[in-house]
Parts: sequence; structure tokens; C-alpha cells
Amino acid sequence: MQLLILNANTSEPMTEALGARARAVARPGTVVSATRPAWGPESVESWYDAHISAAGMLDRLATWDGPLDGVVMAGFGDVGREALREAVSVPVVDITEAAVMMALLVGHRYAIVTTLRRAQPMIEASLTAAGLASRCATVRSLDISVGAVAADPELLVRRFRDEVAVALTAGADVVCLGSAALAPLTDLLAASVEAPVVDGVAAAVALCEACHQLGLRTSPIGAWAPPLDKPRPGWPVSTAATTDR
Amino acid sequence: MQLLILNANTSEPMTEALGARARAVARPGTVVSATRPAWGPESVESWYDAHISAAGMLDRLATWDGPLDGVVMAGFGDVGREALREAVSVPVVDITEAAVMMALLVGHRYAIVTTLRRAQPMIEASLTAAGLASRCATVRSLDISVGAVAADPELLVRRFRDEVAVALTAGADVVCLGSAALAPLTDLLAASVEAPVVDGVAAAVALCEACHQLGLRTSPIGAWAPPLDKPRPGWPVSTAATTDR
Amino acid sequence: MQLLILNANTSEPMTEALGARARAVARPGTVVSATRPAWGPESVESWYDAHISAAGMLDRLATWDGPLDGVVMAGFGDVGREALREAVSVPVVDITEAAVMMALLVGHRYAIVTTLRRAQPMIEASLTAAGLASRCATVRSLDISVGAVAADPELLVRRFRDEVAVALTAGADVVCLGSAALAPLTDLLAASVEAPVVDGVAAAVALCEACHQLGLRTSPIGAWAPPLDKPRPGWPVSTAATTDR
Amino acid sequence: MQLLILNANTSEPMTEALGARARAVARPGTVVSATRPAWGPESVESWYDAHISAAGMLDRLATWDGPLDGVVMAGFGDVGREALREAVSVPVVDITEAAVMMALLVGHRYAIVTTLRRAQPMIEASLTAAGLASRCATVRSLDISVGAVAADPELLVRRFRDEVAVALTAGADVVCLGSAALAPLTDLLAASVEAPVVDGVAAAVALCEACHQLGLRTSPIGAWAPPLDKPRPGWPVSTAATTDR
Amino acid sequence: MQLLILNANTSEPMTEALGARARAVARPGTVVSATRPAWGPESVESWYDAHISAAGMLDRLATWDGPLDGVVMAGFGDVGREALREAVSVPVVDITEAAVMMALLVGHRYAIVTTLRRAQPMIEASLTAAGLASRCATVRSLDISVGAVAADPELLVRRFRDEVAVALTAGADVVCLGSAALAPLTDLLAASVEAPVVDGVAAAVALCEACHQLGLRTSPIGAWAPPLDKPRPGWPVSTAATTDR
Amino acid sequence: MQLLILNANTSEPMTEALGARARAVARPGTVVSATRPAWGPESVESWYDAHISAAGMLDRLATWDGPLDGVVMAGFGDVGREALREAVSVPVVDITEAAVMMALLVGHRYAIVTTLRRAQPMIEASLTAAGLASRCATVRSLDISVGAVAADPELLVRRFRDEVAVALTAGADVVCLGSAALAPLTDLLAASVEAPVVDGVAAAVALCEACHQLGLRTSPIGAWAPPLDKPRPGWPVSTAATTDR
Repeated sequence: MQLLILNANTSEPMTEALGARARAVARPGTVVSATRPAWGPESVESWYDAHISAAGMLDRLATWDGPLDGVVMAGFGDVGREALREAVSVPVVDITEAAVMMALLVGHRYAIVTTLRRAQPMIEASLTAAGLASRCATVRSLDISVGAVAADPELLVRRFRDEVAVALTAGADVVCLGSAALAPLTDLLAASVEAPVVDGVAAAVALCEACHQLGLRTSPIGAWAPPLDKPRPGWPVSTAATTDR
Repeated sequence: MQLLILNANTSEPMTEALGARARAVARPGTVVSATRPAWGPESVESWYDAHISAAGMLDRLATWDGPLDGVVMAGFGDVGREALREAVSVPVVDITEAAVMMALLVGHRYAIVTTLRRAQPMIEASLTAAGLASRCATVRSLDISVGAVAADPELLVRRFRDEVAVALTAGADVVCLGSAALAPLTDLLAASVEAPVVDGVAAAVALCEACHQLGLRTSPIGAWAPPLDKPRPGWPVSTAATTDR
Repeated sequence: MQLLILNANTSEPMTEALGARARAVARPGTVVSATRPAWGPESVESWYDAHISAAGMLDRLATWDGPLDGVVMAGFGDVGREALREAVSVPVVDITEAAVMMALLVGHRYAIVTTLRRAQPMIEASLTAAGLASRCATVRSLDISVGAVAADPELLVRRFRDEVAVALTAGADVVCLGSAALAPLTDLLAASVEAPVVDGVAAAVALCEACHQLGLRTSPIGAWAPPLDKPRPGWPVSTAATTDR
Repeated sequence: MQLLILNANTSEPMTEALGARARAVARPGTVVSATRPAWGPESVESWYDAHISAAGMLDRLATWDGPLDGVVMAGFGDVGREALREAVSVPVVDITEAAVMMALLVGHRYAIVTTLRRAQPMIEASLTAAGLASRCATVRSLDISVGAVAADPELLVRRFRDEVAVALTAGADVVCLGSAALAPLTDLLAASVEAPVVDGVAAAVALCEACHQLGLRTSPIGAWAPPLDKPRPGWPVSTAATTDR
Repeated sequence: MQLLILNANTSEPMTEALGARARAVARPGTVVSATRPAWGPESVESWYDAHISAAGMLDRLATWDGPLDGVVMAGFGDVGREALREAVSVPVVDITEAAVMMALLVGHRYAIVTTLRRAQPMIEASLTAAGLASRCATVRSLDISVGAVAADPELLVRRFRDEVAVALTAGADVVCLGSAALAPLTDLLAASVEAPVVDGVAAAVALCEACHQLGLRTSPIGAWAPPLDKPRPGWPVSTAATTDR
Repeated sequence: MQLLILNANTSEPMTEALGARARAVARPGTVVSATRPAWGPESVESWYDAHISAAGMLDRLATWDGPLDGVVMAGFGDVGREALREAVSVPVVDITEAAVMMALLVGHRYAIVTTLRRAQPMIEASLTAAGLASRCATVRSLDISVGAVAADPELLVRRFRDEVAVALTAGADVVCLGSAALAPLTDLLAASVEAPVVDGVAAAVALCEACHQLGLRTSPIGAWAPPLDKPRPGWPVSTAATTDR
């Protein structure tokens, strides 16, 4: 299948890293592309960033002309998954939902460990909207920004272990990585704690493949039906696609 | 106070009508401006439209240079209110929340009557996210599109009366108009039913004025704090303001 | 408009102070009266007090013969708002609901800081009944009784700052004053913390004025319709009105 | 044990009928008294009535000087149970809670069939406040007023069967009688339908006896602790007890 | 009435102790028998144990040939109550539900204190399924296994007091013993704290008697109707009854 | 991977059909075995059946000595998934959870269409326990028993279309087949309606494979940790494995 990893932010290195992460977990036969919006924030750490990035992702999809069997929306807790599902007929899997679903299969209560504290309310809102909040034990943060997670692995692991310990006390028995930026560091983090650790990017790749395996596509009726045909002056904003890899 | 009516869609006539509606209900001393995104859909009837329009509203605010004491976000059930609150320090009142709050003061259970059925899930999601869903009796639709509501007042009233009757049976005793497009028709619709009818645009004007009266501004800490300073290449998309009236 | 501040308790000094607070925030053209039950507790700090005071407020309204365009029910977390809405056709705004609604417009999660710990369950029950609990981060108490709040401003501010700090850690970004007794001290308390502070009395005045501005009155149908005509021997208890100011 | 049936309304015939109903189901050794407020509505069919009657019940208890081991609060869906629990140290059992608890032991989803439609919202609010709403399938009404339930047994049974049929379709498998006025008619109604029928008055008698059997009394700490000692001018309103039987 | 105490585990001493506890609280005229599954775990401390024990209880009931007017399902937080209700037509009262119901009558928020931490999630799931979770303040554990609770009464009381103190801080004002193994120790534990203490075994005895008093039996229609007649090869597993006492 | 389809009932033909269905959707490299309890009901249509079958599945797993990388628990809405997860260290995927998770990826609100009406409450309870109920639009039934679904395909399709039509009106846009017995008929049913149709058996196969792909196993800590070592006399009931295919 042709799988597109759609990074929510405009960071080129992160787009490349997400593509690599996806390729590492994808099944044989899955061809992974990775792309990003042509405009918008280099990291998403609030609703302000997330709403710019949601439109940026829609804009990017509008000019995508490659083959497409599934889309991974790679921004943890970000907004816009419903809109993306209207925009294309193939399955769109949000890494937030994906991480939680896989976590629910291997643990009774999950925790999310994200980067900055201010991302917590947006993540909680995303879980509630997805109808997946009721088995959430807690959302914790590392107090390390998206841009800094890779800078000091030792600090990262120490902070992660601390927050996981708090999460276990709160009743969690499985942990989701609450940022796409943490995806490439999954093995390092998973090795540092006893509970299973779920990376949403990997989870979303597997769930996109599962949709394809079962022949499931977004429902053509109801809330996620294709958008009505109407004037949308100035949209899409971008007219030439960015370079993808 | 200087009050900005920020239409969610790009329709110029609707922007003018919303400005007029706001001026009709505003208190003496409130100076009303009305504007709209420079790009995006002419009406918002799905998450796809709503997410384009949310970014369009952010884009419009980024280039707004007039005086500003409050913003009315004029798109019923639309997304993005949290982002707008991060973007400016003055109060932002979403007409969805505003309609429901005023309704809760005069009725025990409220209903929402919107335009198209496909808008219902987005409205329900908005109410849940706002923490205002628990006294909602039902969300109903007229099966008349945003663009067509003003075309046939007789049909509109007949459909409205029918849906309100169903809503009362479902336990509602107050009705919110579920589309900014219905705002200019409030008096006509209110005269046709026994229950109080709340127009979100008028409600939001009054609540913005109430915030100003009480000296309340968006919290500078927590979830709606100003966005972090960071590179956002290509943003804002627009560099010149549209004409406002 | 003619606005009546209906104190829930029988304290004459607090009735005067609430009237003064309301006058300080009311718009030009709003004429404020303040009254109180003819009998009942001097402060409301439990369901026992609150139920005596609810009937006392109904008794007071039954003998009120002045002009009336709106009523502020001035007892935080107290019971009886639905009954008052049946009793008169003009809008009745409970300071509990009013504080929370205004808080929801300027913060993502609100906290309530009340006087005594034993008032907390009643306040929580009130929020749940109002359908406004889901964005409540926490309800805290100062451990200072209603009668003692004005006695030692320095202690009050210190305790308030402590509880607000706990509330912020719990996720709150806006704070409601959880007692009518705190209303006259709003400026002092608001100046002591970074988060916006909402006084329910001021909020209820503004929301009553907003109802009047929008022409909204309590729904004549459904749960809050006027009471059925029937024998109620011995009711109202009072036959002569107390003196109002 | 000495058990007091505290009718919520001031109807003498209903007070007598409730006492008789209680005696018919009470265990040997239980001595039943029945009383009523000295003032207030002859039937409770709204929050207005319910709040007058709550204070009336508190007033009645304040002047009760007989022996007391338990109180049945006999008004379905009425307000004030928390206040009564503060007022006396013996267990207070509300017939609403009692009916639902017994129903939950013999059915998976319960329905409530009350008298008038306007009582439904108050009953629903009572169930939510009691934390007992989640297994409620539906609340239905007979459209027969409290005063008229005994007038036409044939009509009553026909209407009851109709509403129970609707309730079963909604998933109920057990039915609670939603008015103290229906208590004396339990056998007639129960014989007319296949589902078990629970009368709250009988249920409350049995649960009061169960509290006594287990030595349980209202918690002396927390939300239902005795009221603080303070001035309550004019309270209690009544100084001489009504005649009890 | 003929009341059967159905111990969930296979411990003979505990079966005897539960029978003795039930006899100590039962009313005159109640004849208590106590039995246990013919196979399964000696204590229930996880879903694994609980599901073996649920089938063991069904197996035991299938071969029970004594008179039967009510069944107490004596395993706190255990699974299977719905199945037992299908299996016999007499009322089945789960000690979990029973403890909570009695607690709700004497306290505003209840806590549960159980044996091992790993039992907490199962207890929480049981409360949610029963629709009785919303007034639960917290579930705490003693970190003492079922088998060890009687070994060191001093330690037990100390741990209990510690956990109750935490529970009161969390808002509880009444405490349920969260294990049948604690039932025989109720008096000791109740004497050690200020809040009322509810033993589920005693509560279930009283509620079974209350059902009998009111003539209530499990609904013959709906979710708990008798099982369909169909082949169930190899079931029941046991063909000879165990010895009961 | 070595994948075990564990049929909840004892029907040999259904066990074979479920194995065939799993093989039809499994990826290359997945080796499918199918087995069933040695004792218990031939179909599961109530909690009574489900609790016998849960223990039967545990009993079967206890004597399973083949290689094992994942287990599909094939009984829709059945109980026991938590116990199975304690019993083995490899992932256990319940077809109920699996169907709903895949449905949530392709539709905004899902419906479940099961066989008999009496299965509905058990399914609803399962969804609530799984924390997956909030996006459920409705649970419907065909009024065709498990044993009869394959008898009359024309009737089956007609009934399915009728119930799906009702479900769409209730807001669903994707449909889950609510019985393992319907799994082999997925293509027939999916072809008859416009909404996507999800078969839980296929979904669970894909999700088990996804767990394997991501290296996820049941959390070794917390609620689903391996059962404590303790005497369980008479368990497992079966000592020789049944024949598997």
C-alpha cells in the first residue's frame, strides 16, 4: 500500500525522521512517503499552532498528486483529523487515536507523557473528542520542548522515568508517547521503564495497514462525507507541491 | 468598546449582515466592526470548511491593526475558539458558547436548530468540548443550506416550527439558532414559537460587552496563554488586510 | 432596568454590601434594589441553611411589590434557582452559574475558592445540576467562615493566594470567588493573583443586564413554567414585606 | 424502631394514607408515625412547590419531639434530603433513592412513571444528584395530577400500562412509581404489568429498617454533619407541632 | 426466609465465617445457609480468579437443591452478578452493590478500602457497571492479602485508619469494607474511625431481607430473564453438591 | 506469528468457520489455529452463557500447549477479556473492542447490529467497560438467534438493511457486526448497505497482528499482571485438551 506520513509541522528534519520511523515499522509491501505543510509552525505546542497546522495539512493534501492508500496524521493531540477524513477517501489515522487504541489492547489504564505542560489540555480535549478518554489515568509532561527532546538523551530518559513513575501511581499500566518528536526515541524510552510504551506513529502505521488489510475506507455518508462543492476563494493557499521524500 | 465581529466564512453579504445584526443589539458606546477571512469557504458546513476557516480567522486577526476590546467569533459550532483566544489578549466569544449560556439562563433544557444535518456532529462536538452539552435536549436541522436560509422565509418558518415542536417533545424549553446565517432572521423565527429563541451573534455581543464591563480578559496563564515565539514560515498567509466595514 | 439583588441570607450588612457591589458594576440605567428573606440563617454554609434560605427567598419574592426586570440570586452554590425561576417571569440569575459562565469565556479550566470546606459538596452539586461542572478543575476552601472573611484582609489574601496556587497546579487558569461574602473584596483578591478572578455577584448583574438587552425572559413552557394554581395553606409565611434598600 | 413518615405536602388524607401504607409493609417492632409540614402546598409538582415543602419538612422536624430512629422523606423527586440529613442524626431515606436502589437489585434498567410531565425534569435532577441515574432507561408520566390519581382507577391502570409498555421498549425491565400518591395503589398497578413494580414509600420503610438493623446512622463528619450553630432569626417558623397520626 | 450466602472463593473457613457473620445480622425468621464453589481459587484478587469463581458459583447454584428465597453473592467487586440473577428467580444481592447502597444512605461520598492494590481496578469496574460510581470518593487498599487480614489485627487497624484518613481528605464521609474477608472484623474496624463503616455482607443480608419483605423478585423480562434453553455440553461441571453448612 | 482464535462457545462448526474467516483475512506468515472450550453453551446470548464461557475459555487456555503469539477472543460482547489477559502474556484481542476500534477509524459514530435483543445490554456493558461507548450511536438487533443466522440469507440481509437504516437515522455512519456468528457472512452484509461494515473477528486478527508488529505485549504490571500463585482446587477443570484445528 501507498502510505503517506503527514507531519503536522513544517520541520524538514522531523518530517524525515517520521518517514524513517514509519519505514522501520511498516510491513513489507508498504511504501512510505513523508511530507509536511508548505507553511506553518515548526512545532505544534498549542491550539494556535495546531489550527494553523490543520489548515496547512489540508492545503498539503489538496495539492498531493501521488498514489494514496492511507494517511498518518502525525501530530500528537493536534486538531483536524475529521477535516482530513472529509478531504480524502482513504483512511486517515491520527497518531493520538492510534497510540491510545494500541495501548488499550495491552493495558487497563493508559498514561500519556508529552513534552510541554501547555500541550496537556489540547491532548485531553483530543481524547475526549475521540471518545477514548475514559481509561486515561493521567496526562503528564516532561517540561522539555519539542525542539529539545533529542538534545540530551540522558535528561530525557530521567524525566521520562520520573513521569512514568507518577503515572503508575495514578493507576496507569501502559504509556503512550505524547509527541511525534518522541517517536524516533521509542526504543530508548521503552527500555527505561517496565510498562509497555506505545509510539503513536508506529501505531498509526500499523492501523493504516490494518484498514487496508480489511478493505476499510472512511464512511462516504454522515459526518465525514466529502465536503460539499462550493466556492472557497483563495483555497488552497499553495498551488505548487513542496518536495516530498 | 471596540468590538470586532469576525465572520467565519468569506461571504461579503453575510459579513455585512452580521455587522448590522451586532449593531442592532449592541449597547450605546460599543463600536462594531465586521470582517472576514481573506480566503476560505463561503459557508461553513463541515469540519473541512471549519478548519480552513479557523486558520482564515487567525490569518485575518494577524493582520488586523484596528483598536480591539473584544472579538465575536461568528460561526456556529465552528472550530478554533481556543486558538483565537491565544492569538489576542482581549476576550473572544464564540457564538456557540454564547447562545448556549444565555439559553441556560432562561430554560432548563435547550435545543439547537441548525441548517444542514451534516453540521450536527460538529455542533455536538463543540458543545462537548465547551463543557456545555449536558443540558442539551437535542440538535435538529432544517435541511436548508446556509446559502438558502433567506430565500424562502415562509418555508424557513414552517421548517423551524416543525423542528422546534420535535425539540419540545424531546424536553427542550428554549431554542438556540444554530447558524450565524439565521441571526438576521431572529425576530421572524422567535415570533413563530412559544419558547424563547436565542441568537448566538446577539448573545456573543452582549457577553463581550459583559466581559468588558467586568474588566475580564483571557487568562494570560495556562491553556490559552499567548503562543510561544517560534518560526512559522509562510505565516500569516495574507500580508494585506481585506477591507472592513 | 429594575434589578433586584436577592441576598440568600438574613444579614442586613451583607445585603447592603451586595447592593453596593451591584451598583458599582451595573450599567447606567440599571436601578439596583437589594433585599433579603424575612427569616432564616445569617449565613449559608450547608444544605440545611440553604434550604431554609431558598424558601425564605421565595417568601420574600411573594411579597415583593416593586417593579422588577431581573433578579440576582445572591448565594454561592445555594439551592432554589429553579424555584425562583418559576416564581417570577423575569430572568433570575444565580451568582454560581454567572461566575462560572463568565469564567468559561476567559479560561479553559476554572477553580472555585469558597469559605468553608463543608460548602464544597454543595457547590459541586450545584455545578453538576447546572451542567457546568465539566471544566471545573477544583473547588477549594479558605477555611474562613462567611462571617469572618472581612475581619483580617491580610490573612484572607494569604489564604487566597495559597489556594489559587493549588488550583493552578490542578489545571485551573481562572478563579471564581465562591461566596457572596467575598464579592465586596474582589479587587483586593484579584490584585493578589495572576489568573483572572470572577465575582459571581458582578457576573450576575452583567448577565441579568444581558438578558434584558436581548429581550430574554424565562421560558413560559416546560420545567420552569409558572407553578400550578393550588392550595398552599400558610404560604407565604410572611405577609408584610421587610424594608428594602 | 420508631419510624417517622414525613409527607412532603400538607394534605392530611395523603399523610394518613402514607402512614397506612408504611404500616402495611413495616416489620413487626416498627412503630410508624406519619406527619406533614404545618404549611406549604397540598401537592408537590414543581421545584417551586418542592422548595417550599423542603423548608416545611425542616420546620416540622424542628418541632418534632417524639422518639425517632429513622425518617422516610415521602416526596418523589423532591428536594431537601441532604438538609434533612443534617437536621437529625438518625437515617433519613428519600423515597426516590429508595425506589431506585431496590429496583437496581431486581432489574438491569429501571423506568420511573410519575404523574405530570412537568415533574420529570425535577425527578431526573434528583436521580443525577443521587448518583443513581446511569441505569435509568426513561422517566415517563401519566398526565394525571397528584390529586386525581385515585379518582379513576381504570384510567390510571390503562395509562400506567401504556407508559410501562413504552418504558420496556426503551430498555427498562423494572418500574418505580414516581409519586408518593401512587404508593397506596401499588398492588393494583403491579398486577397490571409483567415487570416488577417498586413503590418508594415501601422501599424507604424497608431501607430505614435495614439501616437500623445494621446500626448505621448519618455520618457525623463531612457534607451532612450537623449544621453550624448560628443565628437564624424567625426560624423555625412554626412553634407548635401539628397533630400527628 | 431461606437465605443462601454464596461465598465466591473455595475457602471453607471463610465460608463458615461468612455464614456466621450473616447469622449475626439477620432478622429473626431468616434461616441462613452458606456454601461455596466446588472448585476454584481460595481467594479472589483479580479478574482471573473472579471469572473462575463466577462460573464456580453458577456451577454451585445449578446443583443446589435446598429451599431458596434469596442469595447473597459474597465476593467484593467480583464478576458474575448478572449471570446469577439469570440463573435463579429469587433476588441475588452482590455485597459490592449492597455496601455502596447502604453507604449512600448515610454519607454523601463513600470510600472503599480493600485488601490488595490490584483489586482496585476490578472494584472500580464493578461500581461503574452497577451505575453506582459517581459518589465514590476513592478506592484504597490496605496492601494486606485476603489470606492475611486476620493474622495481625493491630496492623490491620493501623493500616485501615491510615487509609480512611486519606479517604476523608479525598472527600469521603462513609467507608465500605472492600473484601468479604473483612466482614467478620467489621466491629473492630468500625470502632477505629469516626466515619460510619459498612460491611457488604451484612448490607446484602439486610437488602435480601428487604426484597423479601417487599415481595420483589428479579425481573422475568429483559436483560436478566432466565437463560434460553440450549445445549451446554459438560455443564454443570459438578454433579454432586458439596457439603453446606 | 502463531495466532489462536478462541471461540467463546462450544460449537464445532462455528469454531471451524471462525478459523476459516481468520485465515481469509490474516497476513502471510500468520499461522491460525482455532479452538473452543471443552464445556459450556453452544451459543452465547446472555450473561449466564457468557460467564460459563469465560471460565471455559480460561480452562481451555490453561491446557493449551501449542505455540502462541496472540489470542483472538471470539465472542461479541462476551465477558472475560481481562481474565484472559492475566492468563497469558501474549496480547489478547476481544472482537468487541477490535470491531469498535476499527470502526472509529472510518466513521464518526458507530452502530452495532447483533442477533437477539437480549444480547444488547451485555454488549452495552462491554462497551462501557472498555471505555469505547461514547461514540456509539445505537445497538440494534436482528431478532434472529445465533444458531439461525445462516439459515435464511435473504431474511438476514433484509433484517440487516432495516436495522442499519434505523442506525443511520440515529446518527451512525459505520456498522459493527455484533456476533461472531455473523463474521463469515461479512461480505454479503457489507454489500447490502452503503456504510462501511466491520467484522470483529477480522478486526481482531488484524489488531493482534499489529500488536505483534509493534512488539506489544500485555502489561506485566497493574490490573492485568499475571495471577498470584495460590491454591485453586479443582482448577483447571479439564485436564486433556480438546482437539484443535
